[in-house]
Amino acid sequence: MGLNIVEKILKNHIVVGEMKKGTEVGIRIDQTLTQDSTGTMAYLQFEAIGVDRVKTKKSVAYIDHNLLQTGPENADDHLYIQTVTKKHGVYYSKPGNGICHQVHLERFGVPGYTLVGSDSHTPTAGGIGMIGIGAGGLDVAVAMGGGEYYIKYPEVVKVNLTGNLKQWVTAKDVILEVLKRVTVKGGVDKIFEYGGEGIKGLSVPDRATITNMGAELGATTSIFPSDEATLEFLKAQGRETDYIELKADEEASYDAIVDINLSELEPLVAAPHSPDNVVKVSELTNIKVDQVTIGSCTNSSYVDMMKVADILNGKTVNENVSLVIGPGSKQVLNMLAENGALAKMIAAGARIIESGCGPCIGMGQSPSNNAVSLRTINRNFKGRCGTTSAGVYLVSPEVAAVAAIEGYITDPRKYGEAPKVEMPKNFLINDNLVIPPAENSNEVDVVRGPNIKAFPLGKDLQDKVEGKVLIKVEDNITTDHIMPSDAKLLPYRSNIPHLSDYCLTPCNPEFPKRAKEYGGGFIVTGDNYGQGSSREHAALVPLYLGIKAVFAKSFARIHKANLLNNGIIPLVFDNAKDYEDINEFDELVINNALSSVETGTFIIENLSKGTNYKMTLNASDRQKRMILSGGLINTLK
Amino acid sequence: MGLNIVEKILKNHIVVGEMKKGTEVGIRIDQTLTQDSTGTMAYLQFEAIGVDRVKTKKSVAYIDHNLLQTGPENADDHLYIQTVTKKHGVYYSKPGNGICHQVHLERFGVPGYTLVGSDSHTPTAGGIGMIGIGAGGLDVAVAMGGGEYYIKYPEVVKVNLTGNLKQWVTAKDVILEVLKRVTVKGGVDKIFEYGGEGIKGLSVPDRATITNMGAELGATTSIFPSDEATLEFLKAQGRETDYIELKADEEASYDAIVDINLSELEPLVAAPHSPDNVVKVSELTNIKVDQVTIGSCTNSSYVDMMKVADILNGKTVNENVSLVIGPGSKQVLNMLAENGALAKMIAAGARIIESGCGPCIGMGQSPSNNAVSLRTINRNFKGRCGTTSAGVYLVSPEVAAVAAIEGYITDPRKYGEAPKVEMPKNFLINDNLVIPPAENSNEVDVVRGPNIKAFPLGKDLQDKVEGKVLIKVEDNITTDHIMPSDAKLLPYRSNIPHLSDYCLTPCNPEFPKRAKEYGGGFIVTGDNYGQGSSREHAALVPLYLGIKAVFAKSFARIHKANLLNNGIIPLVFDNAKDYEDINEFDELVINNALSSVETGTFIIENLSKGTNYKMTLNASDRQKRMILSGGLINTLK
Repeated sequence: MGLNIVEKILKNHIVVGEMKKGTEVGIRIDQTLTQDSTGTMAYLQFEAIGVDRVKTKKSVAYIDHNLLQTGPENADDHLYIQTVTKKHGVYYSKPGNGICHQVHLERFGVPGYTLVGSDSHTPTAGGIGMIGIGAGGLDVAVAMGGGEYYIKYPEVVKVNLTGNLKQWVTAKDVILEVLKRVTVKGGVDKIFEYGGEGIKGLSVPDRATITNMGAELGATTSIFPSDEATLEFLKAQGRETDYIELKADEEASYDAIVDINLSELEPLVAAPHSPDNVVKVSELTNIKVDQVTIGSCTNSSYVDMMKVADILNGKTVNENVSLVIGPGSKQVLNMLAENGALAKMIAAGARIIESGCGPCIGMGQSPSNNAVSLRTINRNFKGRCGTTSAGVYLVSPEVAAVAAIEGYITDPRKYGEAPKVEMPKNFLINDNLVIPPAENSNEVDVVRGPNIKAFPLGKDLQDKVEGKVLIKVEDNITTDHIMPSDAKLLPYRSNIPHLSDYCLTPCNPEFPKRAKEYGGGFIVTGDNYGQGSSREHAALVPLYLGIKAVFAKSFARIHKANLLNNGIIPLVFDNAKDYEDINEFDELVINNALSSVETGTFIIENLSKGTNYKMTLNASDRQKRMILSGGLINTLK
Repeated sequence: MGLNIVEKILKNHIVVGEMKKGTEVGIRIDQTLTQDSTGTMAYLQFEAIGVDRVKTKKSVAYIDHNLLQTGPENADDHLYIQTVTKKHGVYYSKPGNGICHQVHLERFGVPGYTLVGSDSHTPTAGGIGMIGIGAGGLDVAVAMGGGEYYIKYPEVVKVNLTGNLKQWVTAKDVILEVLKRVTVKGGVDKIFEYGGEGIKGLSVPDRATITNMGAELGATTSIFPSDEATLEFLKAQGRETDYIELKADEEASYDAIVDINLSELEPLVAAPHSPDNVVKVSELTNIKVDQVTIGSCTNSSYVDMMKVADILNGKTVNENVSLVIGPGSKQVLNMLAENGALAKMIAAGARIIESGCGPCIGMGQSPSNNAVSLRTINRNFKGRCGTTSAGVYLVSPEVAAVAAIEGYITDPRKYGEAPKVEMPKNFLINDNLVIPPAENSNEVDVVRGPNIKAFPLGKDLQDKVEGKVLIKVEDNITTDHIMPSDAKLLPYRSNIPHLSDYCLTPCNPEFPKRAKEYGGGFIVTGDNYGQGSSREHAALVPLYLGIKAVFAKSFARIHKANLLNNGIIPLVFDNAKDYEDINEFDELVINNALSSVETGTFIIENLSKGTNYKMTLNASDRQKRMILSGGLINTLK
């Protein structure tokens, strides 16, 4: 039987488990990447693991999230990351060098390799035939130390592309079409493999836009074949030696197939407040636009920017629009500055911001209240742009540029000839903002600013676990409830004590005080606890506050893994009605905790009520070991 | 008797008072400018005055301070300023168009005109022979409404320049030399008029660097003649019709003369933490540099940037340095993007940030803790960069660029040939980010975001004024104590209620609560109360909190004017020892307040102690009218 591309790469990389759908497998990781908002913690964890030098083929640390620097915290983090990476064998991409996913694609990604990154858009690398997976910082730290990375062996969905994109229809519209069909929840534990005749018309930047935003499907990752287009891209980057061909065997099988005829697509837009809320641009014309931002890891390639420059050439941005453009990397920015395209953007009235994540993560360029903001980014969740009352619309760079001129959402097909941009034969190659690691680790002193605090480590599980219920919350608590993250808190990702004062405060402002007063305790919650981002701080901060177990009706998948990674016991009520019996401040006790972990069956005594509850721990043997020894790091020591 | 340039312009503009040193004169204002951090309040005040359309020859509103936009507040302010200016006859310079002083020089300033601006570096316009004065927002609002602007008739100091600058010695070194000699307190109530043969070698951008940083002398303003260099600059801006020749008469007299032989100057640096802490660069070599920022209203002209590009050409920024460059205006940025200079900067590894004030005001690019930061800006006060532990060194763009490459403070004269840049014959002229006012005010609706709150207005003075002493503070309280301003509070300059929670909190965190609890009261303080910036929020916020009078041993000049403008009575102890007799929470009363204002002599009864104190109001008749009617705006109605 033939293999698809995903199977070919996984087969080469599985070191624990076997290729059996739904089972846990450990895969060898060739490359890692971090960004700065998750990276500081990842390197603190790497230091705790105690490996002197990374064991991957290449690990790169990028600085792209916290570039505003409205206090010393960001620059302190950058300096810590610069020195700790230099010491331990990691390449350091300085601020100004660009967005991790854009730069990694340009300069470091290799077809057929595996990559884990502490950023949810790591699947961008699938544009050149890599398995790129977003993960928590601890998982990346383990991978840097040579440990395997665990996933549920995925279903593979083929996205079969036929036909050719018409004028003004773009790669962004392809992934918006997939999102419309599959929805933001439709991709869980799946990998989307693109194929079919239609892919021939898609360049690497096009493909990367598609795999990037596959993250919004909830998928493990997305991937394209490595073919002539990949070779052409790598050649233009001076990296043709990194090329291998990668294609599915003819008899390859898939768990599902999504057919898309590119010729039938129209310019699309994801309306507020979800990336799968997709409609045709032609249905939303005459909505007045206040802001347009072009950039982010989704749409900031050289080709994207050249199209925008072409549309803006000789025009003026509408009087009532603030147009913000952030080219994706130093390479892109430098080429635009050399060939005159940047001058065209500036002449039209664009505001040029630094190459970085910026507006996409709400780090700057928040629009005015009630604004309509058209963005080429990947997520339009309510409030993510920093302005809760604003509505963010996700569009292609072409639709964005046309709207910036017109001042209204405009069907670009009424706008004449679409811009045509050739892929460059040679990109401008200058890696002088990438600092290689030191040859001798002893030469390097790691610099830790005062905002960089030690992170908490769990302890060996005791047989008797007791404490008070510190908070009782409802269904669908998100990681934004557990550990809020905004422009004011994001600079403190390396300072768990500071963050702890905000833990669960959207649910109850008293929670941090209570946890500190009682020296820790338990959380009781309803269904789907911990949904949302993969933020491991939603486990680290409760650990710091002394949370020993969370009792829930059900857990979101990634957050449960993060709790297990940090030695907090995630238990599920056998009888959901028991939830009702428990009140805040009830005194609970788990006897025989050690043997309960082995069996997976727990009895929780409620001393305040004189009742008890049966609960279950759903965990693999590997994960049970983490609970017994107080978290993943302790199992590695 | 001949006249100097200052006398010629003032003579043409005095409408109240006469040309007599030390007396108050009211001058007619030809132009105004505002920036966004002070502008929102200035336009709220303009609206309160009730004039439909500005009466100046030209008024321009710039957006250059709050460009980061980490929440909706900044964009809301921009939208308010855009709409209120359009309605009332003011030109609006959109975000991205550049720093107010740089753009005003390029596109709007006129030799021989008067300009008041709600920014302390308004004297930059003196580079083309204007009298440009920094003032509070209310003063600018009054000027827009056609009212005169009051100053103490100044002493005029001639700075007599001879010789020529050597290689690597720049205009920045000229003003640093003046600061070294005159000190930051030496310029109060003086205007510095530059002349002598040496000025022929200084271009308009050079001159503007010098007049800009004259603000650091505490001077009213600084000015250069309008001569061939001015004409050449205006011609290259397509504005030769704005040119007039302006020079001092041969027999002109001055109150003092400062002689500087340009040929004798060396590259200079102002070391932490004061602009007058000036030493030779050659004395500070081998200090390791962590950050270099190039830009700000002091040094961000086309010529400055071209020199920097020339130094960086083909080089790489030192591995341990973050080099940040912010060209001063869209015109500058556009020209650099067209001629390849920007590409050279990017290739060398510079981070290019938006044209704006940015690092100079601590809005972003704060360095790491304990960092050494070389900056081409104008102020290096402790903490102003956002990092209290950092040391900021003020230098020329040339010294900055060389240090960025070397990683150490370096004497540039050891660095080969200095870059030579010709003034362009034609600047790139494209004012498409300047929105002209509407012809018909009725067409425009002013948009007020939720962060834009009404500001407080004083009331007619009552004959009996009573209340508690809410706080008693020491000598030398600055406006930073009274109304702190950092990256977190600066977006709230249009929200007095929000700011009020931080009023005087560096002295006592309880003050705002107390003031609200007791419905206002009194402040008791020592010498030099209100020193520092011209921030009128240091008066507006106490007014909002119900402060009726401040009892001080002495006041700083501008803050006292701001108190009077807002109807808060600034009284000085006749007997400084009475300060000791008063305690916090003492109950004080002023009887016969109305007649006391007329005579200037007050008796304050201390009901708690059974004592009383004699105090004096030092104010002009104009200012007394403001106290009686509750502030300047009320006197205009």
